Amino acid sequence: MPNFRFDDAVPVLERTPATLRTLLKDLPDSWILATEGPNTWSPFDVVGHLIHADRADWMPRVEHLLTHGDAVPFPPFDREAMFTASQGRSLSELLDEFAQLRADSLQRLAALHLTPADLSRPGRHPKFGVVTLGQLLSTWVAHDLGHLTQISRVMAKQYTDAVGPWREFLSVLK
Amino acid sequence: MPNFRFDDAVPVLERTPATLRTLLKDLPDSWILATEGPNTWSPFDVVGHLIHADRADWMPRVEHLLTHGDAVPFPPFDREAMFTASQGRSLSELLDEFAQLRADSLQRLAALHLTPADLSRPGRHPKFGVVTLGQLLSTWVAHDLGHLTQISRVMAKQYTDAVGPWREFLSVLK
Repeated sequence: MPNFRFDDAVPVLERTPATLRTLLKDLPDSWILATEGPNTWSPFDVVGHLIHADRADWMPRVEHLLTHGDAVPFPPFDREAMFTASQGRSLSELLDEFAQLRADSLQRLAALHLTPADLSRPGRHPKFGVVTLGQLLSTWVAHDLGHLTQISRVMAKQYTDAVGPWREFLSVLK
Repeated sequence: MPNFRFDDAVPVLERTPATLRTLLKDLPDSWILATEGPNTWSPFDVVGHLIHADRADWMPRVEHLLTHGDAVPFPPFDREAMFTASQGRSLSELLDEFAQLRADSLQRLAALHLTPADLSRPGRHPKFGVVTLGQLLSTWVAHDLGHLTQISRVMAKQYTDAVGPWREFLSVLK
């Protein structure tokens, strides 16, 4: 699948909030707050990060690119904003908020009536310069899937010692 | 979470079939049949593997251990059985079968009324010798989460080229 296609990508973006809800809702805090060690993120942290990314990154950058092309760089994105934004909130609240934000994001995307020809339209990333709309949208999808990978890996690693000699056979623990 | 606890583990095992259904059901084949290259598994292959593991590995080994202790090794498990067993079947069928099998597995587990004291009961693995019931049950959980990690990683990697310069910032693509 070398090229971005809306018919591939949108179904994945649509499913992420429900997938995370199904995996995480009402699990004990021993899973939700688990990390891979100091300065790594828990499932709770990741959900907060995804919320902030939908709010401040994905559709805002799509709209910025369509307005400014590559003349004005995207505003920078704070990938750790959730450490303050999620404070005092429950995972259930965060999952609800993410579902609502993602539905809104995909409505805004659909309303743009973008075509395959639009995917080559240029924008400017503050760090690495000219990018295309297709690259931005592909990154949205890979970012969702990367963080689902992270959450399930963080959870698996909680049993690194508990599995005993099976550790050698479970590549996720390495 | 250094030690296995039923109250942590069972909720994860319960959620796996629905998580996979939410993530995968009705996605285009471009995702379902995607791999990481020759001799690697697609999401479709992984679901078939999880089915065979519930059918032939997890509860059968628990019951074997409770019957034989460490006197008789577990029968070997064919981790590639799905390459024949899944042939000609749809993902939707496999997801339904996995949900049914997992529900049965967890009913059988609950019916054993195991206690924390049982977790140290010994069994014998055909390759690495004496293991405990707690290690076997922990491996069941980590195996589920490892394969969820694999599925989301395989999917993310389909956009390795499509994301352009963002590739450097997406650790799942490395």
